[in-house]
Amino acid sequence: MHSRPQPAAAGPASVEAHRDKVRALLAGLAVRTGTVPLADALGRGLARDITAPLDLPPFANSQMDGYAVRSADLAEGGAELRVTEPVPAGAQPAALAAGTAAPIMTGAMIPPGADAVVPIEAAEPDVFPEPGSPATVRLPGTAAGSYVRAAGSDIAAGTRALAAGTYLGPGQLGLLAALGLAEAPVHAAPTVLLVTTGDEVVAPGDPLEAGKIYDANSTLLDSGLRQAGLTVTRAGITADDPDALERLLRDHAPAVDLIITTGGVSKGAYEVVRQALEGHGVEFGSVAMQPGGPQGLGTFDGVPVLCFPGNPVSCLVSFEMFLRPVLTGLLGSPAPRTAVRARLAAPLTSPAAKHQVRRGTLTPDGTVHLEGGAGSHLVHALALSNALVHVPAGTADLAAGDEVEVWVL
Amino acid sequence: MHSRPQPAAAGPASVEAHRDKVRALLAGLAVRTGTVPLADALGRGLARDITAPLDLPPFANSQMDGYAVRSADLAEGGAELRVTEPVPAGAQPAALAAGTAAPIMTGAMIPPGADAVVPIEAAEPDVFPEPGSPATVRLPGTAAGSYVRAAGSDIAAGTRALAAGTYLGPGQLGLLAALGLAEAPVHAAPTVLLVTTGDEVVAPGDPLEAGKIYDANSTLLDSGLRQAGLTVTRAGITADDPDALERLLRDHAPAVDLIITTGGVSKGAYEVVRQALEGHGVEFGSVAMQPGGPQGLGTFDGVPVLCFPGNPVSCLVSFEMFLRPVLTGLLGSPAPRTAVRARLAAPLTSPAAKHQVRRGTLTPDGTVHLEGGAGSHLVHALALSNALVHVPAGTADLAAGDEVEVWVL
Repeated sequence: MHSRPQPAAAGPASVEAHRDKVRALLAGLAVRTGTVPLADALGRGLARDITAPLDLPPFANSQMDGYAVRSADLAEGGAELRVTEPVPAGAQPAALAAGTAAPIMTGAMIPPGADAVVPIEAAEPDVFPEPGSPATVRLPGTAAGSYVRAAGSDIAAGTRALAAGTYLGPGQLGLLAALGLAEAPVHAAPTVLLVTTGDEVVAPGDPLEAGKIYDANSTLLDSGLRQAGLTVTRAGITADDPDALERLLRDHAPAVDLIITTGGVSKGAYEVVRQALEGHGVEFGSVAMQPGGPQGLGTFDGVPVLCFPGNPVSCLVSFEMFLRPVLTGLLGSPAPRTAVRARLAAPLTSPAAKHQVRRGTLTPDGTVHLEGGAGSHLVHALALSNALVHVPAGTADLAAGDEVEVWVL
Repeated sequence: MHSRPQPAAAGPASVEAHRDKVRALLAGLAVRTGTVPLADALGRGLARDITAPLDLPPFANSQMDGYAVRSADLAEGGAELRVTEPVPAGAQPAALAAGTAAPIMTGAMIPPGADAVVPIEAAEPDVFPEPGSPATVRLPGTAAGSYVRAAGSDIAAGTRALAAGTYLGPGQLGLLAALGLAEAPVHAAPTVLLVTTGDEVVAPGDPLEAGKIYDANSTLLDSGLRQAGLTVTRAGITADDPDALERLLRDHAPAVDLIITTGGVSKGAYEVVRQALEGHGVEFGSVAMQPGGPQGLGTFDGVPVLCFPGNPVSCLVSFEMFLRPVLTGLLGSPAPRTAVRARLAAPLTSPAAKHQVRRGTLTPDGTVHLEGGAGSHLVHALALSNALVHVPAGTADLAAGDEVEVWVL
């Protein structure tokens, strides 16, 4: 009962300044890199640039089922050409003789000498002849290059296919496979120790005495961290005993890359995280953000520590505003949140001195509807939301129809 | 070499009509439901409605560190009140006597009799006294309800907390935890057999002969399906041998919920999937979509089958347009794609008869930049994209600045 408000001298840090501090802290994260099979690379960040070892497509090929031709054979009015051996996908065709047309399948290699494809629908007859039986086909005038996918037209051998730090999702891994690569160099998943604090906090499923609340933070952050590709060690809930918290951290620290605590960081009494860690390598302060103002940051036994406030929405906002984007920037994983502009469905007010982060539902017409008020305890409203709505510092009132930046969750 | 274009009588199906067929096919998906610990429910769909078993917050509590008061004690000019025992979070406080103020921490229960909280910053002195030592505090006039979070103000006991079919991400699981629920009823992950076909297709890492290409589809779809929460059995690449394909499907069918094939579905010769499955419970046809026009759909040995075209971008677009939204609708998982409006950075053309799906990069200013052309082989351009851009049937030309619907990948 002898805590006091922080010295107001410095004032709260801006969101950007605090994110910079988190970035500086995590720049030293001891994360391994290694080469893994593509299937294990899903959701990871690329550890170095990938140069294309071959052209894509690897060779000129047909965009359609049709006839490979020499365009010079087809005058403006077209011509009747003799049909040669068909070219299936995967075959290495013989050169196309002048005055002939080769049936060719989508994706099949353009025969040497041929420079265009006429789709089967434009041929007379519009059905391929039986292979081996002599046949001719009438084809219209065709420009060189028609329906041909040129070698290297998607990417040329020797150019950069993906940059270091790229998030590896289905499209990126599909590209690596198309380039013939069976493995990818990636940053491994950091391991995070997650500690929820508070005498008032009870595990879901246990009986709830008067004055207590169920622990939402462990589940919320555990899910968020795992969805972001991190490995999580859950230390459970610790009571408001600084010595017990310190012992718990000391036991786990050697096995983890990062420690996250929730609760116990504000200006009240009984702030267990503050009591255990202040002056032992962790600084506590205030960020000009609502919710999520009180924040702690530093190291414990050499391991980076982030101390988030105790309300569930504050935890989520702290994760999304500080940890997640910093990890994306440093390791290429998780995928960056997509930011869009949307129009407010209703007016809002926000403390002008703070960056307010509201929760809302983004609809396909480009409107965002706020879910619940600004309160950091509104976990039901959070569960109805699919987006974070940003009201930057300096803005106190917005009207319905005003544009805001929205992050897609 | 005796295939011919599909009878044109019916014409291609619309995207919506084909999606309806996929939905009807998968409505019979034999997916189990079961109750799992919250940690295992991440990414799954909720199998039934959840009713809140308690209020959230469970009791009226303080939004600030400050003093719990009876607002009637504080006239307009405020008053000097005697300080009583402090109320930490988690405690069940005694009733507050008239004329007294109780130090109270954020989240702590409002004592019976109290109806408002004065933040510590507004108190004189603005520091809590040592517990046990007699003290008074001067507090300003305060309206009833100030800084009090009312019981049930987030959600009231007995009301629906989440609807059946809700995707369970961090926010939703956090809510269930806050409600004291340790488990959730979910739909299990369907198991998908993934078969890539084509004589021209080679596994990444193997040598590439002339005319062959590396298999991007297996990696692309395997990643996409796993990211969507499905369990994937990869059957590898089969050559263009209908009997071998049929044997492979027969071997795997009893162990899977759904079969997906890629390649071998179009109008050319050597269409192995068509040859193996047409007339055996699978229909092949054309959808008015670019890319991804040729599609097959039906059952094999009682197991639903979707046959996607062979180009990588066609595969991804088929998955995103048909399978993914249908699974979301039926099972609540994967999470629905967020759709937004964006302005085109550059003009585009599209075949008016088809729904064109382009790939692009959505930037925070609300602009979308197309990556690469319309070609379904452009896997490098796909890897640079973070969004699908929709040009519905009936639209042939769009100008820079025109608004389009965009799905965030």
